[in-house]
Amino acid sequence: MQSANPYSMTITENSILELIAGGPAGGNSRRGGYAGLQVGIGDDTAVWRPRVGHETILTCDWFLEGTHFLADRHPPRSVGWKCLARAVSDIAAMGGEPRCFLLSLALPKKRTSGWLAGFLGGLREAGRALDCPMAGGDTTQRDQILINVTVIGECERGRAILRSGGRPGNAIFVSGRLGEAEYGLRLIQANGKRVNPGDVRLQRHLYPMPRLEVGAFLARRRLVTAMMDLSDGLSSDLPRLCAASGVGARIDQARLPCVRMARQDASKKFDASQLALHGGDDYELLFTVAKKNVAQIPKTFGPVALTQIGEITAQKNVVLADQRGLSHIIKNKSWDSFR
Amino acid sequence: MQSANPYSMTITENSILELIAGGPAGGNSRRGGYAGLQVGIGDDTAVWRPRVGHETILTCDWFLEGTHFLADRHPPRSVGWKCLARAVSDIAAMGGEPRCFLLSLALPKKRTSGWLAGFLGGLREAGRALDCPMAGGDTTQRDQILINVTVIGECERGRAILRSGGRPGNAIFVSGRLGEAEYGLRLIQANGKRVNPGDVRLQRHLYPMPRLEVGAFLARRRLVTAMMDLSDGLSSDLPRLCAASGVGARIDQARLPCVRMARQDASKKFDASQLALHGGDDYELLFTVAKKNVAQIPKTFGPVALTQIGEITAQKNVVLADQRGLSHIIKNKSWDSFR
Repeated sequence: MQSANPYSMTITENSILELIAGGPAGGNSRRGGYAGLQVGIGDDTAVWRPRVGHETILTCDWFLEGTHFLADRHPPRSVGWKCLARAVSDIAAMGGEPRCFLLSLALPKKRTSGWLAGFLGGLREAGRALDCPMAGGDTTQRDQILINVTVIGECERGRAILRSGGRPGNAIFVSGRLGEAEYGLRLIQANGKRVNPGDVRLQRHLYPMPRLEVGAFLARRRLVTAMMDLSDGLSSDLPRLCAASGVGARIDQARLPCVRMARQDASKKFDASQLALHGGDDYELLFTVAKKNVAQIPKTFGPVALTQIGEITAQKNVVLADQRGLSHIIKNKSWDSFR
Repeated sequence: MQSANPYSMTITENSILELIAGGPAGGNSRRGGYAGLQVGIGDDTAVWRPRVGHETILTCDWFLEGTHFLADRHPPRSVGWKCLARAVSDIAAMGGEPRCFLLSLALPKKRTSGWLAGFLGGLREAGRALDCPMAGGDTTQRDQILINVTVIGECERGRAILRSGGRPGNAIFVSGRLGEAEYGLRLIQANGKRVNPGDVRLQRHLYPMPRLEVGAFLARRRLVTAMMDLSDGLSSDLPRLCAASGVGARIDQARLPCVRMARQDASKKFDASQLALHGGDDYELLFTVAKKNVAQIPKTFGPVALTQIGEITAQKNVVLADQRGLSHIIKNKSWDSFR
């Protein structure tokens, strides 16, 4: 059951802004509370105080109905969680910490009631879990749900980990298991019905968890030479890291930490290593480590496995060594909205 | 004539990113150049170094085909200019300076050629004119053009000018002339044809100029108690400033600096004071000044008039005194996308 919309008679941008802000959004004035955020929702801009000795890191991400989620299939709570979590993942990929975010939201009138409440619930859960409160945004009416999230984070000065530092001989690692989110997506696509939000096989697709602690640990210990997050899939993202670093890579298929599938899906012809290679939306970290530091990378960080999957090469292509020892140039089958 | 699209055979997100970045977007590494921006387009996030003694101010703005502009009527150069200029206007309204921006762009394939080139041209012109380079963004394909711009700016610590500082007895001022953008919009709507970009009557609608110098001057001299920019129209925005300050306002219609119309439009039944009261998109500044400081507000700042239009009141409504001396509660006829 969805609660009635208290604003159903007089929906205006101001009333929706109040829902988003969790109370009257005007009358904002300087305040303490969250360290750093001086002025939040309700003024022309947010005002935020950066930490001494730190650099600001900035990222924005689309999350669009029909492109990135289906409003009638994906629970609104998942949409709220995921739109923030996936943007925060870019902060994790720099080894940084999130500080606050801006929400740009365009909505059909019919989504201003129960859908909006569920969405804001998931968004606030993510904000609390990731220590990243809302600082402001922009709202308008539209025939489909459009979301854009900007996250502001911080790194110690000069310590942000770029994509460009990979060097031949570096070991290539990933966090977690790959293909888990794609597995959940395929199940949803195959099912055709409204998603059961309690289905554990769907959790990584619905509620991805950016690897903030892993990223911060690797940055603090200066253990990595390059890092990025896996948003579009290994076969699409690894070539980007290689291009930025001016190098190539060799991946061992046997070492890929692939999604583990439930027994009832064995007949569904999902190929775990294909999901791991090409599946998007995992928001795991991909990083490179100088040989001398490989022994310092733990096998697990909390519940998250850290797995060496290959090596950076001087030859500028990305090669997959299969389980028979044969090499293939990796063809990019991952997500590209323009393909 | 539009140039051919060099990417027409192989449009991908990467190739569009290269067009946006003005060159290969990968391989970004730490760089000097623009003061503050350490890492620009091409990594997981932008990296930006804040100035000592300053606070960061943050704003984002939708600019959507069909809602905020018409792709077949508005020149792409204007769309590029305006999407940045209107977001920077929020920085002016805090008395701040823009530093860099993030561009989120969703495009139909058919807009990736000439339209995109024109758009990027206007965007870069605005970036140079407003001293606000692009630091990053996100791109995807979509059936309509969706734009979201985030601007990062700075104010001296504790000096951002909020909406909440207006006090009874304060004088109310506006910069420039009001209704000019709405006048241009009405002409475009009445015409029905493709816009003539050289028509001077349309310039404030197509190429608004945020009042950065005025805002910075007022903030530096500590002359104002509250400030905001006029984006939705005086009758919509002044009540927001009053609500944030917990006050009301009285405006003298005779003092409104109204749009001046061309002689050939005299027959078109445009009412200049209605345009000035309710027209949106002017991006002028609305600000309040303590009585003792009114004499320090110059009549003009460069080419921009600064005009006292009324006074803040303790009574919490917004009243218009017309030219016969009669008072009316201002009804909000301005832009609200949900109304």
